[in-house]
Order: sequence, then structure tokens, then C-alpha cells
Amino acid sequence: MALYHPPCEDLELAAVLHALSDPQRLRIVHTLAADPAPRPCATFDLDVSKSTLTHHFRVLREAGIIEQRSDGTAKFNSLRREDLEQQFPGLLDAVLGSAAARV
Amino acid sequence: MALYHPPCEDLELAAVLHALSDPQRLRIVHTLAADPAPRPCATFDLDVSKSTLTHHFRVLREAGIIEQRSDGTAKFNSLRREDLEQQFPGLLDAVLGSAAARV
Repeated sequence: MALYHPPCEDLELAAVLHALSDPQRLRIVHTLAADPAPRPCATFDLDVSKSTLTHHFRVLREAGIIEQRSDGTAKFNSLRREDLEQQFPGLLDAVLGSAAARV
Repeated sequence: MALYHPPCEDLELAAVLHALSDPQRLRIVHTLAADPAPRPCATFDLDVSKSTLTHHFRVLREAGIIEQRSDGTAKFNSLRREDLEQQFPGLLDAVLGSAAARV
């Protein structure tokens, strides 16, 4: 079954801010921002359980921050940079700039 | 007793994003951004109970987004624009710009 991704025009600011309001999820977004190549969940260096990691990716996907594509048993993740920039200009860069300094 | 306000250097991105991740709190921030004069809680046009309103102001204050000063029985609220800009450059403007378009 295809994973749900909200269309660009349905992205909601409050949901995006909520998805970003967690240090682990900020690290995921930061890692994805550093390299645009889609990246499997298992390659993120986070000290959390697999189910917690899955939860974080789901929150990011359902808010419209990341795209997840299945390939075999792996899920590949990438940032929805253009969609975010279109709906919330400057927001992702401001978050990433702040996170770079403090996470 | 004085209300707690985190010092500028202790503001945390995740806490700030969480505080902003609610439509009612976004409206409060938007109202405060439109007029720099400190504004009493009772003058905000939100369709929520008094206790919910108090909760929202507390979340915003404890995250470092607003300053609250008591004057008699009223609390006057203002945005901590300079502190936010110092710690998270561009973030508040990006949120306000997005909120203006969508809230």
C-alpha cells in the first residue's frame, strides 16, 4: 500500500511546526538537508528504538516534511524542500540554520 | 511572585517550535506582532475558555516567545522579538509570514 503524503497545498503550518518540535526529528531533517540523495531509515545515527524511529519518520511524512518511498524492505527518505518553500517561504532554512547552531 | 521567563541564551528551538505549533497560539503571536504595545490577555479575540487561554500564554512564555508582566490583576503580553531573532534568525518572520497567509 502506498504511504500517505499530504499534497503540497494541504500542508499546515501548525502540523509542520509540531513535526519539527522534537530534537530527534530535527536531527533527521538536518541529516536529510545535508545530502539530497534519498536515504534509508536504518542509516540515521539516532539512539532510539526502531519503533520510535518509525514513529518519527511517520510524523515527518504526515506533516509533509519528508517523502518516503519503499524499495524492497527499505524506506528511502527525502526532504520535500520545494513544497515546504512554496507553502512556508524561509521557514525550513530558518529552522535548519538555528538547528545547525544548537542541535 | 515574578513569572518565570527563560533567559535569551537558554531558548531552545524544539520548545519554541512546539509553542508555535498550535493555531490559537499562532494567532496570539500574530496579534502581538501586529502591534508592539503590551497587550492584556483579556483583549485577545480567541474562542476558548479563560483557563485554556491562560495555558496558551504560559506555554508561549515558558518557551521564551512572549514576555508577561503583571499590572494589578491584568497580565500584559509582548513578543520577545529581539531575543528570538538573536537565537533563531529569520524564524519568527518565516512563521509570521506563513501564518499571515494561512491562519
